[in-house]
Formats: sequence, C-alpha cells, structure tokens
Amino acid sequence: MKVNELVHDQLELLLHQGNLEGAKTLLIPVQPADIADAIEALDEPMQAIAFRLLSKTEAIEVYEHLETPVQQALIQKFKRQEVLDIVDRMSPDDRAKLFDELPAKVVRRLLSQLSPKEREATALLLGYEEHTAGRIMTPEYISLKEHLTVTQTLDRIRSLANASEIIYYLYVTDTSRQLTGIVSLRDLVVSSPDKTLGEIMTRDVVHVRTGTDREEVARLIQRYDFLALPVVDREFRLVGVITVDDVIDVLEAEATEDIYALGGVQSDGDKYFQTSLLVVARKRVLWLLILLGTNTITSTIIRSQSSLLQEVVALAAFIPLLTGTGGNVGAQSSTVVIRGLNTEELNDLGAVQVVFREGLAGLMLGGFLGLMATIYFSLTEDFVVALSVGISLVAISVLASIAGSSLPFLFRSLGLDPALMSAPFITTAVDVLGVLIYFNIARAILGF
Amino acid sequence: MKVNELVHDQLELLLHQGNLEGAKTLLIPVQPADIADAIEALDEPMQAIAFRLLSKTEAIEVYEHLETPVQQALIQKFKRQEVLDIVDRMSPDDRAKLFDELPAKVVRRLLSQLSPKEREATALLLGYEEHTAGRIMTPEYISLKEHLTVTQTLDRIRSLANASEIIYYLYVTDTSRQLTGIVSLRDLVVSSPDKTLGEIMTRDVVHVRTGTDREEVARLIQRYDFLALPVVDREFRLVGVITVDDVIDVLEAEATEDIYALGGVQSDGDKYFQTSLLVVARKRVLWLLILLGTNTITSTIIRSQSSLLQEVVALAAFIPLLTGTGGNVGAQSSTVVIRGLNTEELNDLGAVQVVFREGLAGLMLGGFLGLMATIYFSLTEDFVVALSVGISLVAISVLASIAGSSLPFLFRSLGLDPALMSAPFITTAVDVLGVLIYFNIARAILGF
Repeated sequence: MKVNELVHDQLELLLHQGNLEGAKTLLIPVQPADIADAIEALDEPMQAIAFRLLSKTEAIEVYEHLETPVQQALIQKFKRQEVLDIVDRMSPDDRAKLFDELPAKVVRRLLSQLSPKEREATALLLGYEEHTAGRIMTPEYISLKEHLTVTQTLDRIRSLANASEIIYYLYVTDTSRQLTGIVSLRDLVVSSPDKTLGEIMTRDVVHVRTGTDREEVARLIQRYDFLALPVVDREFRLVGVITVDDVIDVLEAEATEDIYALGGVQSDGDKYFQTSLLVVARKRVLWLLILLGTNTITSTIIRSQSSLLQEVVALAAFIPLLTGTGGNVGAQSSTVVIRGLNTEELNDLGAVQVVFREGLAGLMLGGFLGLMATIYFSLTEDFVVALSVGISLVAISVLASIAGSSLPFLFRSLGLDPALMSAPFITTAVDVLGVLIYFNIARAILGF
Repeated sequence: MKVNELVHDQLELLLHQGNLEGAKTLLIPVQPADIADAIEALDEPMQAIAFRLLSKTEAIEVYEHLETPVQQALIQKFKRQEVLDIVDRMSPDDRAKLFDELPAKVVRRLLSQLSPKEREATALLLGYEEHTAGRIMTPEYISLKEHLTVTQTLDRIRSLANASEIIYYLYVTDTSRQLTGIVSLRDLVVSSPDKTLGEIMTRDVVHVRTGTDREEVARLIQRYDFLALPVVDREFRLVGVITVDDVIDVLEAEATEDIYALGGVQSDGDKYFQTSLLVVARKRVLWLLILLGTNTITSTIIRSQSSLLQEVVALAAFIPLLTGTGGNVGAQSSTVVIRGLNTEELNDLGAVQVVFREGLAGLMLGGFLGLMATIYFSLTEDFVVALSVGISLVAISVLASIAGSSLPFLFRSLGLDPALMSAPFITTAVDVLGVLIYFNIARAILGF
C-alpha cells in the first residue's frame, strides 16, 4: 500500500507547515479509501484539520471509510452542525453501522436531530436483526413504474442518480410497491428508446427477504454473479437493495469468523487488534478453560495406569506423539468438512458418505504412519512397545478422522455453527479416547 | 438451495417421459447457475440431452457454470462442431480456466480449431503465470477514444454491449492503446449529451499490471468498492479487465487456502471432495509425517526423564494437559496474526508490537489457567506436583503465544506464506519446548 504512505507523509508535512491549500490540492486526485487511511495515520488533533479540508461530498465518502474509533473521535471534536451535516448525508446502511458502535446516548441525540426522512430510514435498518439482509441493505435504489419508456427512464435516472447508491439495476414496482421486475442499465441502453420498461424487464427476479441471513445473500450474489439483490418485506414490497461491495465485506467477515473458530478464538465482528487486551483474554479464556477441563480427563486416565507405567516407563514417552497425531488427523478432517459445509461445496454429498470417505482416508494415513513408527521405534525400543505405538496410531487416526468429520454434521443438525466444532475441541476429544485406546492396546500386547 | 432441487426433479421427470418441449419450457425462466446445478445432478447420459435443450447463448452461460468434470464429460460426448460452437463462444477467461484442466492433447486440438481471434485471446491469457491478473482478466471490455461525445458513445455501446463482459465502465485509450481515463456508465448517462469523453473521464485510473497477484487485485477492488479494474501491460497499454464477480471467487479460494493451511491440509485450488482418496491422502500425509517426526523429539525428551518419571509417576499424567494447552494458546495467537496479515488488518502494526501484545495475553491467560490448575490438582495430588503443573502452564502459555505470533512474521519476512506456519505446526513445536520446560520446573521444585 505504497500510495497511502506517500499521501500520508506529504499530508503530514503540508499540515505541519500550515500549508492547507497545498494539502487540499494534494488530496484532490486521491481515492476516498486512501484519504481515510492517510487521515487515520495522523495524530489525533491533525485528523480533524485534515478532514475539514475535504469538500462536503468527499467528506461523506471519506468518513464512511474511516475506522470506527476515528469516526467516534471526529464526532466528539466537531461542532454539532458539522456532525449533523455528515451524519445526515451518509448512506443509511453506513450510518446504521456507525450507530451500532456509538454509545446509545449519542445515537439518541443524533437520531433526534436528523431530518425526518433520514431518521426514518435509519430507524428502519436498526430495527432488523443483526446479520440479516435488512440490516445491510440500502434504501437508496431507483424504483420505477412499468409504463415508462426507455427515454423517460434515462431522463429520470439523470435526476435520481445522485440520490441512489446503485443505478446499474432499476427495479420496477406496481402501485402497491410490490416488486414486479428488474431492468439493468445495460438492458436499458441497448433497447430502442420507445419501448416501455414493462416490455424489456425480467419478471422472475431473484430476491431475498429482510430476515434472510447475510451470508445467504452473499452466496446468492456470488452464485449468480449479480451486482446487487433486491430485498422485499413480507408483503413482497421492495424495501432495499444489497450491493456487491457490501457482500465482499460480508464474505470476508464470515471467513474470518470461521478461521477464528478453527483457531479457538471467539469472534463477534470486532477487529481483534483494535480491542483491549482484557477483552482479548476474555474472548480466549473460556475456550481454554473448557479444553483444560477435558484435558484433566486425559490426566485422570493416565493416572489410573500408574502401575502399568511404573512397569514399562517407556510407554509414557509416546503419549504426546499419539495424541498429537490424532489431533492433527482430526483437525484435517474437520477443516475440510467445516469449510465444505460453509461454502456449500458439500451440499450434494450426504453426511454418511463424507464420514465414510474420511474414515477410509484416516485408515490409509494411519496405516502408513503406524508402519513407519513401528519400524523406526523398534530400533530403539522393545518391539512390543513399538508395535503398541504403531497399532495405536492406526486406531487413533481412524477414530480421529471419523470424529473430525462427523461432529460438524452433528452440530449443524442441532442448528449450531459447524465451525464451533473446531480443531482444538476435536484435538482434545481425540486426546481422551486416544490414551484409552493406547493403554488398552498396550495391555493386550504386553499381556498385563 | 430448494430452487435447484425442484428444477432438477422436474427436469429428470420430463426427460424420462421424453417430454423435451416441456423440459425446454421448464428451463426458460431458470438462472444459468441453477440450470448448471440441475444438469450436474442428472445421470451422465441425460446430461448431454438436457444440455442440448438450451439456446446457443444460454448454453455458453450454463457451460461456464458447470463443474470441470462435467464440462470434460460433455466435451467428449459432443460432436466436434458442437464443441467448437461452445468453446469458441465462451469468454476468454472462462475458456482459459477450462483449458487449464483439460489434457494438453485436447487443448492443442481445440486451440487449432478456434477462430484466429479467439485463439489469440486464449493463448495470451494462458501465457500469463497462474494466480496473476493476466490469467483471470477478460479481454472483452469497451475501449473508446476521448473525442467521442456522450451520444456517440451511447450509440457505440448499443452495438458493442453483446461482445463485452462489462459495460459499466468504459475505458479511454489513446492512439497507442495506452490507458488515459475511465468513464462509468453512470457518469455517461448523467452527463449532457454533447460533452466528450475527454471532458467527463477520470484521469487517475486505479489499475493493475498483468503480473499483479490475483489476491492483490481482489484487495484493491474490495478496498475501493469498484465493479472492475483495468489491467495494463509494461507499456501501459490496456490489455484486459478484471470484474468483481471473479474477485469474489478469488477471495473465497484464498480463504479456503488459508483455512486448509491452518488445518494442515495442502490445497492447490482443486475441490477437496471431488478429488480421489489417494490424492487426498497424498495432500495430507507429508504434513502428518513432518509432525510425527517432530513429535519423536518430544518422545526422546520424555524417554530421557525415565528415572524422574519412575520416581514420581504422577508427573506423566499431566504431559498431554500441558502440551495440549500450550498448543491451544499458540493456535489462538497464530490464527489471529495469520488472518490479520492476510486481510491486511495488521499492516499498520509492527511485528514487535504484536508479539509483545500476544506475549502479555499469554501471560494473563497462563496466569489464570495456572492458578486454577494448581488449586484443582492440589486436591488430588501432592502440592509440589500441582505447583509444578501450574507454573509450567504459565511458562508454556507465554512461550506458545510468543511463538504463535512471531513465527508467521518470520515466515512472511522470508517471503513464505504465513498461513504455512499453521496451528498444527506450532502445536508440535510447543510440545517439544513444553515438556522441556515442565521437566526442568518439576526437577527444580521437587529437588531432583
């Protein structure tokens, strides 16, 4: 990101020299996202000064790109009128996102001062549940009636374009505001000027409801290569539109959530590196405590085998190797199954088929690893010990791959997020069963 | 995905009844992606029959949505002319993707039979390295000269729209084909009809080079909320365009790659559940062998402590608990750091700052867990054993969080993918150091 650093360095220099005109000129050709980055990197007092250099239109766009803490700091620094100017002109979905983060007191005050139209739009969005289509949609779309001609429509777009976030799709509604069709700007410009929207529109419109999960919205846009999707309410009235740029952010947030869950970190959409250490510890400690608890079961099992271990102390040396390998095999299986479920790659395959396949993979992998281990350890240990380790590896690998692949399905059928069946959990579950298997196999082979 | 299942069931029924007209009518309002899914779920002989029901234009779109194995099966079943009809009309980027998967012999034959224009376009794309902008761009864009007026441009678009994949951005080039500006269709329709493109175009165009990594392209589009990005060659000549729908697929593929790496599964873009078991085992075994190898070091360390373990056999019981917790803490740290590096959330923070922060988090978490463990185990064990376990937990947690957060940075500075420093690897590394710490602390406390 060399652009931002360059802009930031020059901006800082110009501001320190008090050369505001120069700073203004510098920022003219720069993209809003880059200006936002440059402002974020400035000292706090400078941030407000730099922000005030922007034209009104640009200020909104840059503000929407700023990180929430900087947005909040600026709000506190600005005069009431300045704040209102910005907040009133933000797009409703970005404004709803900002209000989510601000203290309730500030939100109430700002809401009461917004223009009635904007207040209503924001209250509407904030009324939908988190992670639903209603929450991320924008009410700034163009809807038209089907008797309009192409020429009339183009005229209308010219006057509406600035008030709309998306103009590449035009939505056709009837008198009761119900969605009846869609016309892309592409269809419009290639159609002959005197046709009506009713003649050129597509009638079977792919749409979502306000309550649809945002991840499902993202999957639909990804599947059909759309630039936007219309959102309708229970009465099939058009209430908003979700654009592809929001969907990219949703997919990234969901991938981060999955990755965090796999790593045993609770995630709630906050940026990890911007939250305080105490919050970070809180997000991680519960998981660690649960795993520590299950690990004490492993300890109890080993403890109960003291007499065997005192007799053949070499057996203790292989416990981490066995539980470690079991955990790794299980993590592999759960990783591919969880990702498959979340990207819908696995939709066509049944649970039984997948678990059977993973069990077979576990058998192949365990067989190979067990053979290697038996040969290698028989060089330094008693053959019976090496053999116990080798056979245990096979059994543990099969068990781990079956557990790793079946538990995500189980969780999903219980209505829970399969990513919660994450690698650390499976690792620990496999630990407990792994040592049980190991000691039983060792006892059988050693004749205890 | 109820739509697909419905379509598939009805389609199958109609085909079995031999009612081809009915099947044709059924598919008319269905989206190409859904038709592709329905066809994939049919028996192989039926697939070709169903595919032949589609109109020429639709056939291309549906074909582009099919999974590669089905694409290949169809190619083998069709007559030469049918194949050519499809392949010649596919968009060059989708065609390049298909050719990547087909046997070299088939590709050579198909290439030689393509029309010269399409052959050249495909050969060009296939000439760029994998995972670069050049490989995923489409050469089907609209480029115009800056003296054209808005009206002339709209006329031109009308005739070009069908040959172009993206018409929402128009690119302005000079006589040597160098990119000089960009006009969005939005700008075009809101501008007065007699202005020239030169007057309304944006001159500082964000662009990428043919060699730019596809993930960087995706990040740029995500950052600026663009619908497409132009690709230029070394001489700054416009050679292609990358659209937002391709970028979504890139981001998803990259997230899958990261998740697989975290789970210790090698990924190369193939779909896991469509590859054979042997390939699956090959993708997973190397990693397991490496981890098994490092685990033998743990075994050797424990083996060397036989005399201590024979004396205090209880110590053996806590080894899995300690290495397990260390692995979990390390996995948490590496997960957040790896994800932060890959989504560029971490760009503003230095390595030292992050590792220090993670070390502190490890100290807090380890302190809490160690205290809990000491209290709990002193109920059933000698206090000195419980204390050894508690202190080891603190030390191992700090170590694990430092290792988990610093190794991804180390890997990146060596030019390697930080996701390779995955949780299983760190788990095993922490195992080795963890048992060393544990035995040394136990010896010190027990006075051996």
